[in-house]
Amino acid sequence: MTNAPKVNPASIATDGCHRYAVRVYYEDTDAGGVVYYANYLRYAERARTEALREAGIPHAELVEQFGLMFMVRRVEVDYVRAARLDDSLIVETETTEVGGATVRLRQVVIGPDGPCAELTLRLACVRTDGATKPGRIPPRWREGLGRLRTRDADRTGG
Amino acid sequence: MTNAPKVNPASIATDGCHRYAVRVYYEDTDAGGVVYYANYLRYAERARTEALREAGIPHAELVEQFGLMFMVRRVEVDYVRAARLDDSLIVETETTEVGGATVRLRQVVIGPDGPCAELTLRLACVRTDGATKPGRIPPRWREGLGRLRTRDADRTGG
Amino acid sequence: MTNAPKVNPASIATDGCHRYAVRVYYEDTDAGGVVYYANYLRYAERARTEALREAGIPHAELVEQFGLMFMVRRVEVDYVRAARLDDSLIVETETTEVGGATVRLRQVVIGPDGPCAELTLRLACVRTDGATKPGRIPPRWREGLGRLRTRDADRTGG
Amino acid sequence: MTNAPKVNPASIATDGCHRYAVRVYYEDTDAGGVVYYANYLRYAERARTEALREAGIPHAELVEQFGLMFMVRRVEVDYVRAARLDDSLIVETETTEVGGATVRLRQVVIGPDGPCAELTLRLACVRTDGATKPGRIPPRWREGLGRLRTRDADRTGG
Repeated sequence: MTNAPKVNPASIATDGCHRYAVRVYYEDTDAGGVVYYANYLRYAERARTEALREAGIPHAELVEQFGLMFMVRRVEVDYVRAARLDDSLIVETETTEVGGATVRLRQVVIGPDGPCAELTLRLACVRTDGATKPGRIPPRWREGLGRLRTRDADRTGG
Repeated sequence: MTNAPKVNPASIATDGCHRYAVRVYYEDTDAGGVVYYANYLRYAERARTEALREAGIPHAELVEQFGLMFMVRRVEVDYVRAARLDDSLIVETETTEVGGATVRLRQVVIGPDGPCAELTLRLACVRTDGATKPGRIPPRWREGLGRLRTRDADRTGG
Repeated sequence: MTNAPKVNPASIATDGCHRYAVRVYYEDTDAGGVVYYANYLRYAERARTEALREAGIPHAELVEQFGLMFMVRRVEVDYVRAARLDDSLIVETETTEVGGATVRLRQVVIGPDGPCAELTLRLACVRTDGATKPGRIPPRWREGLGRLRTRDADRTGG
Repeated sequence: MTNAPKVNPASIATDGCHRYAVRVYYEDTDAGGVVYYANYLRYAERARTEALREAGIPHAELVEQFGLMFMVRRVEVDYVRAARLDDSLIVETETTEVGGATVRLRQVVIGPDGPCAELTLRLACVRTDGATKPGRIPPRWREGLGRLRTRDADRTGG
């Protein structure tokens, strides 16, 4: 089987990697003619949301049933090449580590000529009742996040 | 006294009109090299927030003390000329009508060469407890909103 | 045939109306728990872009082949009900008038419980070479925009 | 002299650190009630723009006079605590390294209770004529960026 990106807006390939399609609109670009640097984080969040939904562990259910939510604690972004107006992009999402109250993810935003932005993120599971205390990730979410994990974990150093 | 815009970020002139200064950054522009059309609504909201604060009737107090909030029900925007990267803009805010549960406002985003966008808005005062039922505007807010009213009401047809 | 919304991201029904699907993500919402009022204009622009593409008259071709572009000159938005996180929305787009250098559009953002925002827009066709002088809409674009026109023009007063 | 943040929108203290004030508006928040994670990058860009202007080396001049621009190549963000609606924030900006075609910066977004987000960035100086080839940073910009450098470079490991 191949690793070629599919434009299906939400799909998890047998390699564990989730792929999400997004188009670049005027709202995403800036006067430099390219996608504004903060907007790759918006794309990444859309892809994470759909990845969780596709894996059967929607974020909304985590909030409603457990009073828990994932918060981004750290993000690193390498800007490799610029995405431009009308480009069709694919956001690949995969977990690299699932801990008791923490998840590590790797996301790559891929354009027509190759990777545009590579992100590594650390998310914490926190309680929604005011404070940001850590909360244990429920078993169903741990398992679902595990399914988003690539087989070849060596590929991702994040 | 003069009507010339002042760059003080929050000030109410003796003519009742509130003026708020904003600079155009990359985040505000698009690949066309100008301010993205939706972003004038962001500028306008910042200016309304500061106008209420300056008038002694912060929106946050309305929420906390009365469980009420203003929601935009209708906005009309005329795009007159494009604002560009690094432009210094002034947002003028004035009320044109204060009703029992409704406020009408006129806002103009002014650039170096004149008006860029002219907005007329209708805001409804609604309860924050879930439903969007109308709520009566408290007296202090009615008076404060009145102070944001220009003397020459004929100027504003909104 | 039925008028029921389809979630196909880009499709023109036989009634001439284009329907575009969009999901509400965290980036779209604000601390009030609903979609931020300016963001309906972002949804509308995405839908217009896809409507032109689907009608065989991509905006990018207008820019490249003719040095022309559409600019929003006026927008009116009625906020009917709030869209919320995770909502699946449909944006309906139809032209109501196609003039020599001007197009009028009506767009409705529809949520699970009915219309959330109703927009009427006037777009001008302008030259991209600096100035914002009017440019005549090329025949292919006039025809394509005509195909986005609903049969029952009486429905739209915009 | 003290390191206490000043709310002056653009000022460089004698310690070399630039401080920029920003208020949190509805547009910046999300349904979680806090500032959306991508928006700290918007704040940081505003602060960098004003820091360069204040240091006498505006980015616009770099573009116009030299056909060069700074592009973000890498950003790391640590989210320490959430900023909320109406919070007054200070963005501190300082260079940590100025190379031939590269600048490293450290920026901290500070809220009422302490740091909210800590950013380290690597910017490349590139030509604006299409390609993204590296360009040598002109002497005036090198000197100006140096003035944004804190005396105690040991503080910043970025």
